[in-house]
Amino acid sequence: MSIPVGIVGVTGYTGLELIRLIHRHPVFELIWATSRKEAGREVGEIYPHLQGEKIARIRIRKPEEMASLCKGTEIVFLAVPHRVAMEMIGPILDAGTKVVDLSADFRLSSAEVYEKWYNTPHINKGLLKDAVYGLVEIYRDEIKGSKLVANPGCYPTSIILGLYPLLTKNLMRSSHPIIIDSKSGTSGAGRSAKLPLIFSEVYDNFRPYSIGGTHRHIPEIEEQLSKAAQTKITVSFNPHLLPIERGIISTIYVTPKDHMDLKTIRESYEEFASLHRWIRLLPPGQLPETRNVRGTMYVDISLNMDNRTSTLIVISCIDNICRGASGQALANANLMCGLEMDKGLEGIAPIP
Amino acid sequence: MSIPVGIVGVTGYTGLELIRLIHRHPVFELIWATSRKEAGREVGEIYPHLQGEKIARIRIRKPEEMASLCKGTEIVFLAVPHRVAMEMIGPILDAGTKVVDLSADFRLSSAEVYEKWYNTPHINKGLLKDAVYGLVEIYRDEIKGSKLVANPGCYPTSIILGLYPLLTKNLMRSSHPIIIDSKSGTSGAGRSAKLPLIFSEVYDNFRPYSIGGTHRHIPEIEEQLSKAAQTKITVSFNPHLLPIERGIISTIYVTPKDHMDLKTIRESYEEFASLHRWIRLLPPGQLPETRNVRGTMYVDISLNMDNRTSTLIVISCIDNICRGASGQALANANLMCGLEMDKGLEGIAPIP
Amino acid sequence: MSIPVGIVGVTGYTGLELIRLIHRHPVFELIWATSRKEAGREVGEIYPHLQGEKIARIRIRKPEEMASLCKGTEIVFLAVPHRVAMEMIGPILDAGTKVVDLSADFRLSSAEVYEKWYNTPHINKGLLKDAVYGLVEIYRDEIKGSKLVANPGCYPTSIILGLYPLLTKNLMRSSHPIIIDSKSGTSGAGRSAKLPLIFSEVYDNFRPYSIGGTHRHIPEIEEQLSKAAQTKITVSFNPHLLPIERGIISTIYVTPKDHMDLKTIRESYEEFASLHRWIRLLPPGQLPETRNVRGTMYVDISLNMDNRTSTLIVISCIDNICRGASGQALANANLMCGLEMDKGLEGIAPIP
Amino acid sequence: MSIPVGIVGVTGYTGLELIRLIHRHPVFELIWATSRKEAGREVGEIYPHLQGEKIARIRIRKPEEMASLCKGTEIVFLAVPHRVAMEMIGPILDAGTKVVDLSADFRLSSAEVYEKWYNTPHINKGLLKDAVYGLVEIYRDEIKGSKLVANPGCYPTSIILGLYPLLTKNLMRSSHPIIIDSKSGTSGAGRSAKLPLIFSEVYDNFRPYSIGGTHRHIPEIEEQLSKAAQTKITVSFNPHLLPIERGIISTIYVTPKDHMDLKTIRESYEEFASLHRWIRLLPPGQLPETRNVRGTMYVDISLNMDNRTSTLIVISCIDNICRGASGQALANANLMCGLEMDKGLEGIAPIP
Repeated sequence: MSIPVGIVGVTGYTGLELIRLIHRHPVFELIWATSRKEAGREVGEIYPHLQGEKIARIRIRKPEEMASLCKGTEIVFLAVPHRVAMEMIGPILDAGTKVVDLSADFRLSSAEVYEKWYNTPHINKGLLKDAVYGLVEIYRDEIKGSKLVANPGCYPTSIILGLYPLLTKNLMRSSHPIIIDSKSGTSGAGRSAKLPLIFSEVYDNFRPYSIGGTHRHIPEIEEQLSKAAQTKITVSFNPHLLPIERGIISTIYVTPKDHMDLKTIRESYEEFASLHRWIRLLPPGQLPETRNVRGTMYVDISLNMDNRTSTLIVISCIDNICRGASGQALANANLMCGLEMDKGLEGIAPIP
Repeated sequence: MSIPVGIVGVTGYTGLELIRLIHRHPVFELIWATSRKEAGREVGEIYPHLQGEKIARIRIRKPEEMASLCKGTEIVFLAVPHRVAMEMIGPILDAGTKVVDLSADFRLSSAEVYEKWYNTPHINKGLLKDAVYGLVEIYRDEIKGSKLVANPGCYPTSIILGLYPLLTKNLMRSSHPIIIDSKSGTSGAGRSAKLPLIFSEVYDNFRPYSIGGTHRHIPEIEEQLSKAAQTKITVSFNPHLLPIERGIISTIYVTPKDHMDLKTIRESYEEFASLHRWIRLLPPGQLPETRNVRGTMYVDISLNMDNRTSTLIVISCIDNICRGASGQALANANLMCGLEMDKGLEGIAPIP
Repeated sequence: MSIPVGIVGVTGYTGLELIRLIHRHPVFELIWATSRKEAGREVGEIYPHLQGEKIARIRIRKPEEMASLCKGTEIVFLAVPHRVAMEMIGPILDAGTKVVDLSADFRLSSAEVYEKWYNTPHINKGLLKDAVYGLVEIYRDEIKGSKLVANPGCYPTSIILGLYPLLTKNLMRSSHPIIIDSKSGTSGAGRSAKLPLIFSEVYDNFRPYSIGGTHRHIPEIEEQLSKAAQTKITVSFNPHLLPIERGIISTIYVTPKDHMDLKTIRESYEEFASLHRWIRLLPPGQLPETRNVRGTMYVDISLNMDNRTSTLIVISCIDNICRGASGQALANANLMCGLEMDKGLEGIAPIP
Repeated sequence: MSIPVGIVGVTGYTGLELIRLIHRHPVFELIWATSRKEAGREVGEIYPHLQGEKIARIRIRKPEEMASLCKGTEIVFLAVPHRVAMEMIGPILDAGTKVVDLSADFRLSSAEVYEKWYNTPHINKGLLKDAVYGLVEIYRDEIKGSKLVANPGCYPTSIILGLYPLLTKNLMRSSHPIIIDSKSGTSGAGRSAKLPLIFSEVYDNFRPYSIGGTHRHIPEIEEQLSKAAQTKITVSFNPHLLPIERGIISTIYVTPKDHMDLKTIRESYEEFASLHRWIRLLPPGQLPETRNVRGTMYVDISLNMDNRTSTLIVISCIDNICRGASGQALANANLMCGLEMDKGLEGIAPIP
């Protein structure tokens, strides 16, 4: 048995990671891919590391051909920027094809919030209520029945899962802000030629960016955390650019409720981890490293109590491109197509 | 069906890469691993990225237990340094267990040559004639029937395969030396704490080493090239240390015979590549990159003629730890156990 | 005019950076250096990049010769680990030679606190009251008259200067903890052969360490912050290891007092920066990068208000080895010898 | 005393390195800089690491203003691409201002050769005979009296100096080709936003480029080597891209004349090195590392004989941006202005 799938936007890093994962998937078969820029060429021409594999021979099509391409395609991955996704999604859904959208266009329940943070009108508001937020640990059942899954952002994935047990169990003191200090590899910035991203500008360097409540992942983080806590949650989210290719570490500082000790908190995480195979609660004293999750779906979480300041430090670590984007998209696709969630997503990090 | 295998020496990078590859292998099952230093601990304790996988629970044993461990083990990977391998191999073979030795101890046909280059007596000379050199493109049939395969070195793999068609077809001018300028990532230097290998000494740096006919891979390269050419071949081999983790590029300079054009040379490589699925002869104008073979068995070869100096430039690129060590060991094990050569060795490079 | 100086412990990275800086200093002249391990060799033999320079010819001496070496030496830099420093300092001071100690042995005013955090008896308690904490922006006058300066730690330098105006002006809400998320390059871990520091373990990786109130720089940070605030300050300090050579960024989260706006806070920092040439308060909207301070004495500070959570985010950036260690030691030596503080410490970051 | 200088093209890496070096130069003073793209802004706005320094306040001018800017300017550095340099140089020379041109426009003596390799008409052929090739070890006297110096390319600098004694002393066998395998850091590719140069494409990767007699530095290398040898020299030049910022290592393979031993060859290099302070002939057994010359004018040369193949391996190592571009330009400017050649160019590599 094979299930035919398509990729819209194959020239970005999320498209490329989708190819890597679909290539090893036992059921999904890529039957087409699109790119405005590279239409007409074969996948193997733009990605020489694929040469010799069957997938290299797929000819890239223009987005305009999508309506006809969708016939016979079970599911489509939208790996295009926000705005472009909502412009393109109509004909795909109309063809009866399921969609996993890797952009931000359907992640927020409110069009108003979207328009404020993304500074562009939402042109497909009607679909918002149909879209399911594709965080598989939380919305597995809803995803199974969905036609449109909004694949979570990379930072939100690391943060929401890092805080989920704490918020659902109401273990946090709400008077103190949640401080999130995140660090991400450069693949999150995409495959695009910008001066601040060239090697000579990034190598042997480290820098914060979008500090102080300005990053577009904030509304997504807050919406999900608020749902988990059943109360409005606001966070201070502050990302930094690491001179590595893959990986996010979010170091999260929260103040637990009075008399809440690490043991109690740990129990709630143990329960969470026991239900979800990709959540790895690290043993006490062990700290995450980005390389430990490289290329995988794992979310490595470490709990640390700084008793001197009564601060709980949750450290959450993922691969931004696999778990935080394309791998998660594939897990969603698995669920939407009636497959096991982790089909084709086994595998451990290559080290070194 | 599963075939039980063991790893001797699990704490080095070749041992670690064996774990990665056996973990995804559909038939081989790791049933034990040894390490003098880490005996008693579980594999997942020394390699936290394995946590959550079944393979993490294997308890590491002392090498002394090997004789009993070998019972019921079909094949053993010796991932220990040279000298240690020949000391340990006896009991394993005596138990009727097959061996793939990743060290240099059985790669050379002559004990004298070994003793000269490795500066240590060979204590198991009798086995040399039984050992098969495990370069699957060349010795596939011999490997299939072998009990002991000497797994090739990383540099030799890149170089021998890069020159093989040229030498077997006798296309090279023998009066001119073969100049080999190789560059390798740091994983080839092993998982050991030495000052020149620490990050602050290697990062943002590049340097040659073992220049001028001193590297121990030379006799191995020359023995195999001489066999291919059916005449004595001498090379100038000069390695350099790249500040990256994985990958070897060997840039090889040879003088073709008079009137030998690139088209003729290319045809011999095309024939070679057509017979071996891991040999990728790059199209004219395309050059290899180490990342294109990362974590794979591919050998990317580019042929370039510098007409101004009548120099043929063969560029050969592999992953030193996978193709140049543990992946190759697994391919050998596949053949020795009657499996398809590429079982469990599919997969494409993760980029970025 | 030249002032003769000596270095005790020339084989570590702080010793090496001292050499770089003394080499270009117009007044200080290195007349001797010691190392137990390398005694008898010339400096240029262990540091080949110095070949061709006069400084390369200095012969390394045993620490035992120090008493006689000190005759005629105006000032000595102790670039040895904590404990060793307090064992060695006696004869130097007895010889009438001034000392800048780069270790932690004389940074804390309380021997008890030292013994608790460093887990070793303090064997030179009498000197603690004589030692001046060598943070030039704060203790310039005391340093000028001192015979013994305790050179600050790298993390504390970035943090204390990042918070100084805030605390002296009493702009912070004391009920909320100070959260410090620091990231440092690997040179801070020293020039020593440890497995977790080798290139293959650090490259393309990122990880926290010493999370949750355990790092030894904490008492030093808190003592100085408490003095500045004139009240007891406790911090949650959490370091991370960056895969770069040099540089620290400390991202510091504090809650300002009610109705305290960014403009007021900024004014206090502007005043501070106007008094101290190495404090660079970045214009609004500009964020620090480690490369901008590479090899220099600059402290780049950025102030950001996250109005959504009423969190002030102070980002402080230094070169850990220059500003955070050897350059600061030289600035102290300048002051102790009656020179201008920035003598020999001009220079801008080499980019790229 | 100060000598006023200007930079045309301040936004590239050679312009940036010129700023670093002029900033610490005791005599040269930058009085203006131009950039079409950034005209109107201050230097410190585009290069934040300069903030706080006087040089940051220089306002960037349009190239059109150059004629008037040149009044009172002693010397101008042309740090623009080839073609642009020859278009711009006229008015500068007309104003009586000296020029160091960092582009390739005046490096070759033959306009025909230039036009062939650079694929563009030479529009200022008359100046070719006036231009002096600015390799200070070879043309020092000619440079002193020159109004126009063509600053050498980075690869040619490493190669010509690496082979100079060999060729002038006629120690090489001419029947065998000179094989040059060069590796360069990314700063040589310039400060421009191109997809193959972004961090995610370069990091943890290594690749050759311009293989087989196609790189534009070839005619420059051959012209100078032929002059040194007083016979036509042809080379096979093959560059590779290193994932580091600065540094070139050229590994050069030549066949010495019969009976020419390493001792004799070494003597000729010792003589060469004794005459030129920046040539460091490394002791036998020591090999260059790019970091040892980082930010300096040094040329580290190692001589190695591979007796097994009668191959002499000359390894030459420089900093491509300092020695191979802007530092060399400053040395030329020193000579043209009657200053000592190494004025302002002291300094050792910052390690780590």
